[in-house]
Amino acid sequence: MRLFSGLSAFPLTPTDAAGHLQADVLGRFLERIQAAGADSIGLLGSTGGYAYLSREARQHAVRVAVECVGGKIPIIVGVGALRTDEAETLARDAKAAGADGLLLAPMSYTPLTDEEVFQHFSAVAETGGLPLCIYNNPSTTKFTFSDDMIARLAKLPNVAAVKMPLPANGDFSGEMERLREMTPGGFAIGYSGDWGATDALLAGCDAWYSVVAGLLPAPAMALARAAQAGDGSEAARINDAFQPLWDLFRTFGSFRVMYVMADLLGLARIEPPRPILPLPQEARSRVGEALQSLKS
Amino acid sequence: MRLFSGLSAFPLTPTDAAGHLQADVLGRFLERIQAAGADSIGLLGSTGGYAYLSREARQHAVRVAVECVGGKIPIIVGVGALRTDEAETLARDAKAAGADGLLLAPMSYTPLTDEEVFQHFSAVAETGGLPLCIYNNPSTTKFTFSDDMIARLAKLPNVAAVKMPLPANGDFSGEMERLREMTPGGFAIGYSGDWGATDALLAGCDAWYSVVAGLLPAPAMALARAAQAGDGSEAARINDAFQPLWDLFRTFGSFRVMYVMADLLGLARIEPPRPILPLPQEARSRVGEALQSLKS
Repeated sequence: MRLFSGLSAFPLTPTDAAGHLQADVLGRFLERIQAAGADSIGLLGSTGGYAYLSREARQHAVRVAVECVGGKIPIIVGVGALRTDEAETLARDAKAAGADGLLLAPMSYTPLTDEEVFQHFSAVAETGGLPLCIYNNPSTTKFTFSDDMIARLAKLPNVAAVKMPLPANGDFSGEMERLREMTPGGFAIGYSGDWGATDALLAGCDAWYSVVAGLLPAPAMALARAAQAGDGSEAARINDAFQPLWDLFRTFGSFRVMYVMADLLGLARIEPPRPILPLPQEARSRVGEALQSLKS
Repeated sequence: MRLFSGLSAFPLTPTDAAGHLQADVLGRFLERIQAAGADSIGLLGSTGGYAYLSREARQHAVRVAVECVGGKIPIIVGVGALRTDEAETLARDAKAAGADGLLLAPMSYTPLTDEEVFQHFSAVAETGGLPLCIYNNPSTTKFTFSDDMIARLAKLPNVAAVKMPLPANGDFSGEMERLREMTPGGFAIGYSGDWGATDALLAGCDAWYSVVAGLLPAPAMALARAAQAGDGSEAARINDAFQPLWDLFRTFGSFRVMYVMADLLGLARIEPPRPILPLPQEARSRVGEALQSLKS
């Protein structure tokens, strides 16, 4: 199995109010993902709240992950930071701790130019020395990758994959055809946005970067394998059961909903880093109903 | 003079490549601003690159500013951070070091809800214990303040002012009338976006939060005083001289242009924090021409 293919599960990073890692809870999340047979772990992604964590907490999370499931399942580590030197340091830390791959989003405050993002990726990919996935997530980074930018980055050493947002027009095949023509053979194209994953996988994408698989890896695996096998009706059946959850992800943001899920699944009582607030009771009830719909 | 009124000048924060403050250069910038008679200093704003600096560098910058010009000109300090507890710590640091006021932008990674921004501001304003200005800057924070949100925040203890982006429709009077109706008497409404400052001041706003005044405080003061006095033709004359610079601010981003200006004015050879890149030679030449146009 190639590193950036199949189902990549993105766990929350459980911390206390001061941002210190709760190592035992993270271990619990990771063991579930590995036991379900997911193809990789996307540690410290947006769902892992990497932007809110100190270097120390991020180092700690990678160490815990490698100790817990290293060698059994590849670990991809998010190393985004506002400063290039910080992202380089995080990439070095991740490699030193035993990560298998890196994930890099162009975090920004001052909106970045294409050339700035190119230089940033070039520096971090070289310093990291591990296969790197471009994290294309305009809703959090404010940076939109053009096809040309992806093609340019794909030529850099170590840049091996891209994690795309769902195409606005829903045309996965057209987008992948364009990108595959412009990128080297073996460059992997995957998608995030759980509610679009069925269509993306049926259209032949390499990877599903999945939020929900961070806490519900088994049904996410069932969905991924059905869609990868081209079984559209089975994939649709499972996707239908997820639908109430997808609706909540879109309404409240998957990051907030996942914290409620961790509690309702009996896995952990944790809260998101402030300023992100725990969802109110009414929303929690709806998450509970969505989880019931998945069980039935 | 009230704290959040008149000309507030936003200096760069000069650092080395590792993000350590160059205290002597910052002192030089601040003394120019104070000598020109500006009404306040906006330290560690977006122009001050606060988002790219460590807590230590930010503490150092406030200490240097207070030592250098404290008591002679009010110092407003940007305390934005992705985490609420970090912004609270920065607010405490700023007060302890002798700042006169705070400036808070709702920095985000996960897009924030209104309630999250409200709780964040509420916590930082209370902890800070200094008059605080709401930093409304959607281009860097991705958060758009509704009129209702500003009105709600304006009721909080210590929240004393708002720094607005230029209205898309150019209707300063209409916007200020609306906001003044919804906010307590004495709540100060100011604008950033240097190319719109003349119109904003002529329309009677309380403050111009000025990037250019960080390096060219004297002509910025002349513009501010003419517009504040209602002398539209003199204000227009000075604004015309600034026009080539405004065009470059809009084309390249004022943050990048200011680094070139510091060099061409003979004040400092400094570079922006990577990933932000120094402007290429062609752009530098255009900045040089724009500065010439100001002198003539």
